[in-house]
Amino acid sequence: MRYIDAFNHFFPKQLWDKMLQADGAAKDIGHRMRGIPCIYDLDERFRVMDQFGDYTQVLSLGMPPLESLGAPAETEEYARLGNDGMAELVAKHPDRFAGFIASLPMNSDNAAAEAERAFKNLGANGLQIHTNVNGRALDHPDFFPVFEMAERYGKPVLLHPSRGASMPDYADEEKSHYEIWWTFGWPYETSAAMARLVFSGMMDRLPDLKVLAHHLGAMVPYFEGRVGPGMDQLGKRTTDEDLGEVLKRLKKRPFDYFKDFYADTAVFGSRAATVCGLDFYGADKVLFASDSPFDPERGPGYIRDTIKVLESIDMPQAEREKISYRNAQDFFGLKRD
Amino acid sequence: MRYIDAFNHFFPKQLWDKMLQADGAAKDIGHRMRGIPCIYDLDERFRVMDQFGDYTQVLSLGMPPLESLGAPAETEEYARLGNDGMAELVAKHPDRFAGFIASLPMNSDNAAAEAERAFKNLGANGLQIHTNVNGRALDHPDFFPVFEMAERYGKPVLLHPSRGASMPDYADEEKSHYEIWWTFGWPYETSAAMARLVFSGMMDRLPDLKVLAHHLGAMVPYFEGRVGPGMDQLGKRTTDEDLGEVLKRLKKRPFDYFKDFYADTAVFGSRAATVCGLDFYGADKVLFASDSPFDPERGPGYIRDTIKVLESIDMPQAEREKISYRNAQDFFGLKRD
Repeated sequence: MRYIDAFNHFFPKQLWDKMLQADGAAKDIGHRMRGIPCIYDLDERFRVMDQFGDYTQVLSLGMPPLESLGAPAETEEYARLGNDGMAELVAKHPDRFAGFIASLPMNSDNAAAEAERAFKNLGANGLQIHTNVNGRALDHPDFFPVFEMAERYGKPVLLHPSRGASMPDYADEEKSHYEIWWTFGWPYETSAAMARLVFSGMMDRLPDLKVLAHHLGAMVPYFEGRVGPGMDQLGKRTTDEDLGEVLKRLKKRPFDYFKDFYADTAVFGSRAATVCGLDFYGADKVLFASDSPFDPERGPGYIRDTIKVLESIDMPQAEREKISYRNAQDFFGLKRD
Repeated sequence: MRYIDAFNHFFPKQLWDKMLQADGAAKDIGHRMRGIPCIYDLDERFRVMDQFGDYTQVLSLGMPPLESLGAPAETEEYARLGNDGMAELVAKHPDRFAGFIASLPMNSDNAAAEAERAFKNLGANGLQIHTNVNGRALDHPDFFPVFEMAERYGKPVLLHPSRGASMPDYADEEKSHYEIWWTFGWPYETSAAMARLVFSGMMDRLPDLKVLAHHLGAMVPYFEGRVGPGMDQLGKRTTDEDLGEVLKRLKKRPFDYFKDFYADTAVFGSRAATVCGLDFYGADKVLFASDSPFDPERGPGYIRDTIKVLESIDMPQAEREKISYRNAQDFFGLKRD
């Protein structure tokens, strides 16, 4: 089977070098990621990819969100270096990299302009946007031009979780949260961002916008009962504002908007989650993705596990092809060969 | 099929009357819940239950956590009224109520004593504990005596979500969170509480303690990949403390502790979630529960939907009986007839 990996992470050399020379957050990230050669070393990358036959990647930057790395002038430069570097990789290695997802300096007024440059000049296949912008929710009007730009160019937005303002901060226990912010906080953040896109009316204003929620739609499939009959009761649990008005403003039932999202298979090899997520989104909305190289083996683990899970699930061949690569071709606007 | 509903909510009359006479939070809750007669009106309760044949309930109080309703002297009184009232209901209507789960004034030094009173004098079948105590995490040493008491009496703890310190608080958007705190925040809170019980070593210190996580184990089944290979990498994402030490202190792999939890079927009629949750916890660890009366119909909806989901899933008769009522008999120590 052919596989196009829709969500996995890499730093192009020009950005990687810049990060290591920088001060503060960017340098810290660089030093931490040094233990994962597959995220910056192209030879290691190819060695990992060689294990998987007809397998190509749509590249995106690794965490963290660029906007967390400095003032706008700085994050604009990171975005340019990153996006230029990605475009070069795709141009130079079309047999390896089927496309790339641009990253934006979301703390800058020029974020939408960088999106346009990436689409027009670099052929970017989508935008990676983190689930909050330094703690600000994605439905803030400042960010609307970015989503509008994606819709105008017919390119998708891929939501990547980020450590946000929603993490536990128990008064008596300030340290050692056991990385709960990663295990459960990230899917929570993604789900909260999805809800805000829905309830703010963004999906009504931009009906052709395609949004993918990383990690098989975060919490939505397992909590479809909350998203469905639960959210139908919006406002019943709240006394201080009339949330019933929010429901009236929307054109559809909340549940139906959540069904409009796309999702990917990056659930670290969980078969049960894959079955559950496929049940919710359907074979037209789910794209194969591995989240490589963030597996314990630093590269091949989740690619191999995810393929194995998909192979273990009985489904018609046409659906299997959609999930494995055809949906990615449509979603990203890749050329077919 | 016989069904014992392991998690559903009711206010005994003496507590209900007291709440309506009280000031502040307790009165607000009472007034809001008035629109749900099935949570305080026994006749309505029986009318709903009559729709389901061989169907009994293990009762617990409705939200919110008692400790959020006032100073210790006040919450101690609520707990006594609630637990006494529950015990009376079970004594008077054994054909309706198979048992009850006690509630505690968790903000009081007398919480463990109230647990002991409920077990010894009232025959309580377990404890309902919310996922944080007015923002304090459950692994705080102050709460250890409560868990210890549950283990000593061989009675389970049932974790119920509560709006905690983990809700989003985006700087620029202070209102209208669209009840995300309920839809996604509650499962997040439950999952975070489970992680803290695991990583704090509570499960090692109290190896015979049984803990049930409401709503089919919250986020754990869908995110078993994060709980498994993800948590095996604990500390790799953190630079400011050595979380690798936490792993070394534990007797088992984090994943295995999460497998030790019990869970219930209260997922608001989601078949896919039920399949996924059963896959993770297995038929020995999942108990039928409806979360009645918090459905759009205010009583019968989720009971009916949950039974329908279970009936639609193919499984051996022995497993079906376990999930429907036999696990509840063992878990709560109910007498068999």
